[in-house]
Amino acid sequence: MGAIITLTSDFGLTDGYAAAMKGVILGINPDAQLVDISHAIDAQNIAAAAFVLGTACVHFPPGTVHLVVVDPGVGTEREGIALETPAACFVAPDNGVLSYVLRDYSCRDGRLVPGLRAVRLTKDRYWRSPVSSTFHGRDIFAPVAAHLSRGVPLADLGEFTETIQILSVDGPRRGADGSLIGSIIHIDRFGNLITNIGSDILSGAQADAVARVKDREIKGLSKTYAQRSGLLALVGSTGRLEIALKDGNASEFLSAHIGDEVSVRMQGGDRL
Amino acid sequence: MGAIITLTSDFGLTDGYAAAMKGVILGINPDAQLVDISHAIDAQNIAAAAFVLGTACVHFPPGTVHLVVVDPGVGTEREGIALETPAACFVAPDNGVLSYVLRDYSCRDGRLVPGLRAVRLTKDRYWRSPVSSTFHGRDIFAPVAAHLSRGVPLADLGEFTETIQILSVDGPRRGADGSLIGSIIHIDRFGNLITNIGSDILSGAQADAVARVKDREIKGLSKTYAQRSGLLALVGSTGRLEIALKDGNASEFLSAHIGDEVSVRMQGGDRL
Amino acid sequence: MGAIITLTSDFGLTDGYAAAMKGVILGINPDAQLVDISHAIDAQNIAAAAFVLGTACVHFPPGTVHLVVVDPGVGTEREGIALETPAACFVAPDNGVLSYVLRDYSCRDGRLVPGLRAVRLTKDRYWRSPVSSTFHGRDIFAPVAAHLSRGVPLADLGEFTETIQILSVDGPRRGADGSLIGSIIHIDRFGNLITNIGSDILSGAQADAVARVKDREIKGLSKTYAQRSGLLALVGSTGRLEIALKDGNASEFLSAHIGDEVSVRMQGGDRL
Repeated sequence: MGAIITLTSDFGLTDGYAAAMKGVILGINPDAQLVDISHAIDAQNIAAAAFVLGTACVHFPPGTVHLVVVDPGVGTEREGIALETPAACFVAPDNGVLSYVLRDYSCRDGRLVPGLRAVRLTKDRYWRSPVSSTFHGRDIFAPVAAHLSRGVPLADLGEFTETIQILSVDGPRRGADGSLIGSIIHIDRFGNLITNIGSDILSGAQADAVARVKDREIKGLSKTYAQRSGLLALVGSTGRLEIALKDGNASEFLSAHIGDEVSVRMQGGDRL
Repeated sequence: MGAIITLTSDFGLTDGYAAAMKGVILGINPDAQLVDISHAIDAQNIAAAAFVLGTACVHFPPGTVHLVVVDPGVGTEREGIALETPAACFVAPDNGVLSYVLRDYSCRDGRLVPGLRAVRLTKDRYWRSPVSSTFHGRDIFAPVAAHLSRGVPLADLGEFTETIQILSVDGPRRGADGSLIGSIIHIDRFGNLITNIGSDILSGAQADAVARVKDREIKGLSKTYAQRSGLLALVGSTGRLEIALKDGNASEFLSAHIGDEVSVRMQGGDRL
Repeated sequence: MGAIITLTSDFGLTDGYAAAMKGVILGINPDAQLVDISHAIDAQNIAAAAFVLGTACVHFPPGTVHLVVVDPGVGTEREGIALETPAACFVAPDNGVLSYVLRDYSCRDGRLVPGLRAVRLTKDRYWRSPVSSTFHGRDIFAPVAAHLSRGVPLADLGEFTETIQILSVDGPRRGADGSLIGSIIHIDRFGNLITNIGSDILSGAQADAVARVKDREIKGLSKTYAQRSGLLALVGSTGRLEIALKDGNASEFLSAHIGDEVSVRMQGGDRL
């Protein structure tokens, strides 16, 4: 099998948009192994795409090319980029959709650290022609990803750049009482509330931590979704504090939304 | 990699129907590269399937086999067909689902033009046995597509035919005031309203065109979805006039449906 | 192409969970051919997953590996299993999700018949490390499936076992009047009501059978979904009695749910 190319978009699977990109890719690299990460990102939701891509891409083998098309600015002056990391290549509009990838490499303010390279997509040699003004996923990003997967060097695709757009997502902050105050950054299909509070901060706090969300307190961290009834707090599979409801949907139960505050403190008042 | 086989159906992805077809295909051609165009066509909506297939299939490389199963008449006397064009093969029930493909080749009333060949699927040698009366997708169309992808000649599959069912979709007509009066033929996931008014008619009319839909007027054609706020009219990625709402859903905003009228005229009264 | 690995889960396609499993698989077996059976199983619905898997898997070629992750008990003491049949391998939590597969082999109470072999997944040599307590699909089942597809023998994965969890689904029972009383076991995307009454019982009863569901009677079995207007009863593509509504949704029309009773009797009072 040839190179793996993943696809992440907000195109849904009802229309033929995702398939059009796949057709273009296979016309350039018939040996590509295509894997959908998601085409069900909420329309134009760059933050959601960044999270889903950032948590899924780490599980793919080295050399994978990740194509991301959540692109409300298509046809405007926003630019396209190709990013190369030691683990993978990414092709996307430069609108913040690679924020979680860049944060994993500690790129502050989107400034690339050594070991990462990126180009702005300015050379139309590897694009479809003519380029529509409304579907760069099909006409620019898909063909560029396909050519990258065949070994076309980054330098052939455009001018090197030192910075990439990154969404400013605050990490958790410290409250006056020593608690950590974070927020919900993603709600998954099961209604689990995934926060920006990392497991590193929580290690060792299993029994004595008290999580607070929407005026409810949850005492102690669970290991599993089945451990006890009602609301539970646990470190989820992406290494972040999650709020879940056993056999239910925490998001609906709590009327919780992305951005809502979630805090954790130690029961005795100790500092986390 | 072997031949590409695409799948378009109204089976959804909740049940195992699409997977059953894929299993059958891989049992016949283990090297097939399977690509979903859509399984989320509205149940039994032949026109929607025809549009999604017709706009996606043009992006696949030559030799692709397109399998289409939106088949309200399964088990009745409606026939199955295999169509060969210079670009691809199509396997489907003969119910209009290939209408956009045939229109691209200017087949009037479904009569095949030179360069196209088709057979009615009458020879059961390449079918599963026994054939159910409710799932020809699995028992006839999928195995036929798989055998075609392995090089079985069209003539082995049935009797040649000169005509294929085609949906009678009127093109836009000319209004008394010189305007072009078309209609919405597809609404995509973003709520964009795609019309049957082609870009060829609109070329050069960018600034002075006035589109009218649901008693609202939109002055000037935009280049991109982000160009201006509110409703906008533009030529979309399939080469047709679209009505969109910046950062919103035009379909919901306008309570617009497939079949609703959309017209365009020149501001000064000039003929388009 | 390499071995086929299918995936069945309740992860949906909005998050990156299914993609994470695929990335893990391709890291171990880059030649795997991945096929989704469904990721849209209702959250934690083991019975639905068992039905969809059981009816789709029979169409895949010998040697296919089926990965199933509907796993409400993840992280608890429920065990993982790998099952080998003459037709395929299955990797799943031991929670009943293989019930239809086991019933096809007449395994009473989940006791394996000769020709089937299974192990409890106890050896972590083929797992990801560390194993999260909330996502065994990614950390245990996916890598085990990938290694199986590369030829790792069953015995290397854990201890052999003689029994597997099976859901106790009663078959149809005989009513006092000689009728067969079954129930709805699945409702598909079209709203068709699929029952546990098999076609073997119904053979030869086409014209004289009377089906009864939600206080409505349907006289005679149809061959196709298009045969007559209104409600119809027919043997569907999985070989079971189905109730359908021509050009409509029987489930919505009848307010029917899984578990609701469906009975069949012969018009003249003869025994089925």
